[in-house]
Amino acid sequence: MTARPANAHQARLLKLLRDQGPNSRAQLGDQIELSRSKLAVEIDRLLETGLVVADGLAASRGGRRSHNVRLAPGLRFLGVDIGATSVDVAVTNAELEILGHLDEPLDVRDGPVAVFEQVLAMAGKLKDAGLAEGFDGAGIGVPGPVRFPDGVPVAPPIMPGWDGFPVREALSQELGCPVMVDNDVNLMAMGEMHAGVARSVRDFLCVKIGTGIGCGIVAGGAVHRGVTGSAGDIGHIQAVPDGRPCACGNRGCLEAHFSGAALARDATEAARQQVSAELAARLETHGTLTAVDVAAAAAAGDATSLELIREGGTRTGQVIAGLVSFFNPGLVVIGGGVTGLGHTLLAAIRTQVYRQSLPLATGNLPIVLGELGRTAGVIGAARLISDHLFSPA
Amino acid sequence: MTARPANAHQARLLKLLRDQGPNSRAQLGDQIELSRSKLAVEIDRLLETGLVVADGLAASRGGRRSHNVRLAPGLRFLGVDIGATSVDVAVTNAELEILGHLDEPLDVRDGPVAVFEQVLAMAGKLKDAGLAEGFDGAGIGVPGPVRFPDGVPVAPPIMPGWDGFPVREALSQELGCPVMVDNDVNLMAMGEMHAGVARSVRDFLCVKIGTGIGCGIVAGGAVHRGVTGSAGDIGHIQAVPDGRPCACGNRGCLEAHFSGAALARDATEAARQQVSAELAARLETHGTLTAVDVAAAAAAGDATSLELIREGGTRTGQVIAGLVSFFNPGLVVIGGGVTGLGHTLLAAIRTQVYRQSLPLATGNLPIVLGELGRTAGVIGAARLISDHLFSPA
Repeated sequence: MTARPANAHQARLLKLLRDQGPNSRAQLGDQIELSRSKLAVEIDRLLETGLVVADGLAASRGGRRSHNVRLAPGLRFLGVDIGATSVDVAVTNAELEILGHLDEPLDVRDGPVAVFEQVLAMAGKLKDAGLAEGFDGAGIGVPGPVRFPDGVPVAPPIMPGWDGFPVREALSQELGCPVMVDNDVNLMAMGEMHAGVARSVRDFLCVKIGTGIGCGIVAGGAVHRGVTGSAGDIGHIQAVPDGRPCACGNRGCLEAHFSGAALARDATEAARQQVSAELAARLETHGTLTAVDVAAAAAAGDATSLELIREGGTRTGQVIAGLVSFFNPGLVVIGGGVTGLGHTLLAAIRTQVYRQSLPLATGNLPIVLGELGRTAGVIGAARLISDHLFSPA
Repeated sequence: MTARPANAHQARLLKLLRDQGPNSRAQLGDQIELSRSKLAVEIDRLLETGLVVADGLAASRGGRRSHNVRLAPGLRFLGVDIGATSVDVAVTNAELEILGHLDEPLDVRDGPVAVFEQVLAMAGKLKDAGLAEGFDGAGIGVPGPVRFPDGVPVAPPIMPGWDGFPVREALSQELGCPVMVDNDVNLMAMGEMHAGVARSVRDFLCVKIGTGIGCGIVAGGAVHRGVTGSAGDIGHIQAVPDGRPCACGNRGCLEAHFSGAALARDATEAARQQVSAELAARLETHGTLTAVDVAAAAAAGDATSLELIREGGTRTGQVIAGLVSFFNPGLVVIGGGVTGLGHTLLAAIRTQVYRQSLPLATGNLPIVLGELGRTAGVIGAARLISDHLFSPA
């Protein structure tokens, strides 16, 4: 795909077709402020670029039947969501529907060269499966702050070797298509906004609790990234005065008290000290414990695991309560690996937010789990690159 | 003024003339994406409305001399900034320059009827002084959350009698002009953005410490108000776990530990217990103590007052540190009544934020006092109504 929309009207038409699927000229006209003749001109120009194709006649609305159009069915986006310990790669069509999706374990600390070798191999597998001949664009999420215009990670704490690596440029060359790069949490928020629980919500927070903890901020329908791309970095907000030492050098950071990593550490401690027979048995069997074990133990009624989840939820809720008072969002979405902890976690977070934030800010505030699970990030990645490609160059 | 811009180009031209003053057609053309002939059409239409007037010939740029235009010199905006214990009323021209400014003590708890009687009397005085024949629009700030589209205060904690009062509608009738209403802290942020320390900054926080404490949030050049208009209500973020009881029913809220009101209470306590001879003497003389007394005592070297300011700054800094990590602003402005506490307060806030937020978020982050003092709110109010009037109807 080399064509880009020539103006804001064409960009808007492309986004409508992406978000609503095939549509008639008449119904597109209802949603866009253009005279019938000017609309026809813009759609004809999009047909000429090949971005849009004719799609038969629409049902009659009384009078002459309108022609349907749709985004070119051969367009393909690659969505990549790199986490600390795993990676998701998916192919979507131009309507951002997932045509194929792979996930594999990965260690982000192996550095960009090794990681992108794996990512490109996964993309190759999806191609070999006949899902794409090539890609028209790719969105990449990484678990750290990104200097957004350049697509370069900056000082990412859990990604040694990535600081300043030109992800956008390097992948764009390898893939032979335009690439956009963003923080993984922002992509999760965009995914839930496009196809998940945050559809049609214009101001919301998306808290991702995985190995670390971060927050996607959507204000007025757009992701707020902050001046250095580090907005939403809530893992180092102080949750406990003079609390646990954190890798960042401070004490009491949220992430030191609750995150996938903190939970695994606490569970291992409880197993070793024989506080929980359930966790001790799992440690014996697996040799190591993760949030998944804590979730399973909690589901089996293990009191220690339930208490760890509740305490973590309360800490997280304390921080979110402050953010709710500050930002006054219309929705809070909880996502990431620890959503396996499910409703125990959610209940603890809700209790704390509803107790601690002002009633005016929480009166109509839903706090919910994300709907898309592992696919949120890759859908968000496809959305990111499509937003770029469906804007005037 | 009944005319409004007919399209986005005219709106942009009006805002350029407001923010940059009189200008030549040629220089306006350099800043706006319009062909020379279309630009001429839009400017001619604005001249016809009377919003813009001719202003002589510009200096030559080589070639034919361009004609200057400016906003109609007779346009008048009223800016009103209602605080908990005082009110500021000012008249500006269309370039938002203050032509006259009055401030008076006031008790917001007297309710909207009494308060607006006083405000209208002050506006009348400014008229009588020959500064305006009438007003083309008015912006009003109130010290509480506002349902922005309607201009109605909602559940304002320190404003009994104001909940649901139709400020916008009532004042619009009284003044015979369009009115917009906003939270006072948002107006301070808009004032500092228009004419103060935040000029040309697109993402910043403006923390106002007066009787209470609140925060204006500017994202991408626009005020973020939140879904119920309560964004920036940081006074009830927990600063001290299990801390002092707060009027909101929780414990440890920032406002319970530091604000103009909390400082006055702490100072009175210190005076009564004879911890500070300086404060005791002032209490004896004045019968009551305010933040102004604490500032004066601190300036005279009173250790207790200095310690109160430092402690308050540290608490405030703890909360701001979390907001900086979350929002990643390009600037933090400290304003409001307690800026009389000056650099002792600022130093304590800075120490805490620079120590506690991540280096990536604070690397280039200035934390400064506001530049405009009492005029920030009224300039912000004039900016608010001009933004409204200089947009297509």
